[in-house]
Amino acid sequence: MELVDTGSAMQAPDGRRAVQALDEFANAWEARQAIRAGRWRRHTSGLAPAHVQGNLAILPVDLASDFMRFCQSNPKPCPLLAVGQPGNPQLPTLGRDIDIRTDVPAYRVYREGVLVGEVDDLKALWRDDFVAFVLGCSFSFEHGLIDAGIPLRHVDEGKNVAMYRTNIQTVPAGPFHGPMVVSMRPMKAADAIRAVQITARVPRVHGAPVHIGDPSLIGIADIARPDFGDAVRIAPDELPVFWACGVTPQAVVMAARPALCITHAPGYMLVTDMLNRDLPFA
Amino acid sequence: MELVDTGSAMQAPDGRRAVQALDEFANAWEARQAIRAGRWRRHTSGLAPAHVQGNLAILPVDLASDFMRFCQSNPKPCPLLAVGQPGNPQLPTLGRDIDIRTDVPAYRVYREGVLVGEVDDLKALWRDDFVAFVLGCSFSFEHGLIDAGIPLRHVDEGKNVAMYRTNIQTVPAGPFHGPMVVSMRPMKAADAIRAVQITARVPRVHGAPVHIGDPSLIGIADIARPDFGDAVRIAPDELPVFWACGVTPQAVVMAARPALCITHAPGYMLVTDMLNRDLPFA
Repeated sequence: MELVDTGSAMQAPDGRRAVQALDEFANAWEARQAIRAGRWRRHTSGLAPAHVQGNLAILPVDLASDFMRFCQSNPKPCPLLAVGQPGNPQLPTLGRDIDIRTDVPAYRVYREGVLVGEVDDLKALWRDDFVAFVLGCSFSFEHGLIDAGIPLRHVDEGKNVAMYRTNIQTVPAGPFHGPMVVSMRPMKAADAIRAVQITARVPRVHGAPVHIGDPSLIGIADIARPDFGDAVRIAPDELPVFWACGVTPQAVVMAARPALCITHAPGYMLVTDMLNRDLPFA
Repeated sequence: MELVDTGSAMQAPDGRRAVQALDEFANAWEARQAIRAGRWRRHTSGLAPAHVQGNLAILPVDLASDFMRFCQSNPKPCPLLAVGQPGNPQLPTLGRDIDIRTDVPAYRVYREGVLVGEVDDLKALWRDDFVAFVLGCSFSFEHGLIDAGIPLRHVDEGKNVAMYRTNIQTVPAGPFHGPMVVSMRPMKAADAIRAVQITARVPRVHGAPVHIGDPSLIGIADIARPDFGDAVRIAPDELPVFWACGVTPQAVVMAARPALCITHAPGYMLVTDMLNRDLPFA
């Protein structure tokens, strides 16, 4: 299975920067309408840039309770933005008129933890026992860091963020368990201190870092060899700063090999009506 | 001149812990009355422990404007809690009925930057051109760290906090200029991350750290040899975390060799009516 930090929307899957991406749809509702009508079949980075985007996971109801407990027990890697009612494709707390069957540009279908296909919508696949989960992603906090003038190395190098499996164990719930995956951004100490303050204010998009400094203390043997994404340069005057990563729930769900699981395709997120600027107060 | 982190009130000058110090006066006003009446001639650590204590500096009015600008330009090492009016010994914003001539247990008198004596009160020395400055100290933020369950090595080792001159330059104002002095507390990364969040909320008592990690990046040649205070152990899994220190304005004022300057004696602080718990919202 290919794991991608689908939340690092600053970095488009094709290597272009979000800030350079198209912004035809400043309005989140219009963006979703275009996606629903099939007029937008690309990644969503840069789309309605003031708005929070979310990772999607859909599970049958028999696993939903355990997965919800897993998320609530592990809020840093799994910050739940919304949970749908069984069989109901609407998510009214995230935006006007959202239909989760049609409002994401591309979906991936996994059976027993194995990718079996990618589809444009879920009209044919939707079931009455499906529960939709939307989780916050690092897009919003990277937005806050960039707004604060903190350079992001993977953005500057045109790469995907570096991600690592750690020896930090998540709190298990039912079949869901496994190590936390983290993303790493190298920073000068003064920026790391500001980054803690900035991201601590947005717990719904991973919040404050989980580690700063020596990678071996969280079980990372070689910082130059990330488990996912791309290695980036760390300057001698920089500290590696580690945040809980949205790849964690992806890896945990796939490892549990559920009969069926549907996610968004990497980089093809749900655009919500929530504003990034409101996240510190949400 | 002996420089002491007079703000590290967790550590009494005689090596006892603040938490073990006497707490006869939970009420700040009663504590000041006892000091004023000569019934308390000891250090103030542990006295009225819920209340903010402050560093005192008294300068003639001709230097006061420059010193106030210095503090306002360097808020991390010099967090101004209050400035008196020339010749007026009252500080009504800091507490009921404060008389700065009598409400500190011991004062030190410096002429041309040289310590010339220590007195119990300023009744004989007070002048119509004196301006009193009270600055926040690390007592309050150490209180917050301990409340959050973060161990402080210097407290555990029964030492004064380790302090270092850095190559971080303060913003000069008139005759006041010089390098920032920092205090260092070693912490595990997870505690360092929480410590940033906790102390960022209290800018009036030094606020967030100014550096984390490699001491050489801020001009500290040997972390085992502090310029002031005591060296403490740094474990292999810990990061040194550096905060701007109240010794900075002391050093800067003494280096300016003012004709006259009066401070509190180290550890003998002004007990204010402000509550530590209100600092994040002040």
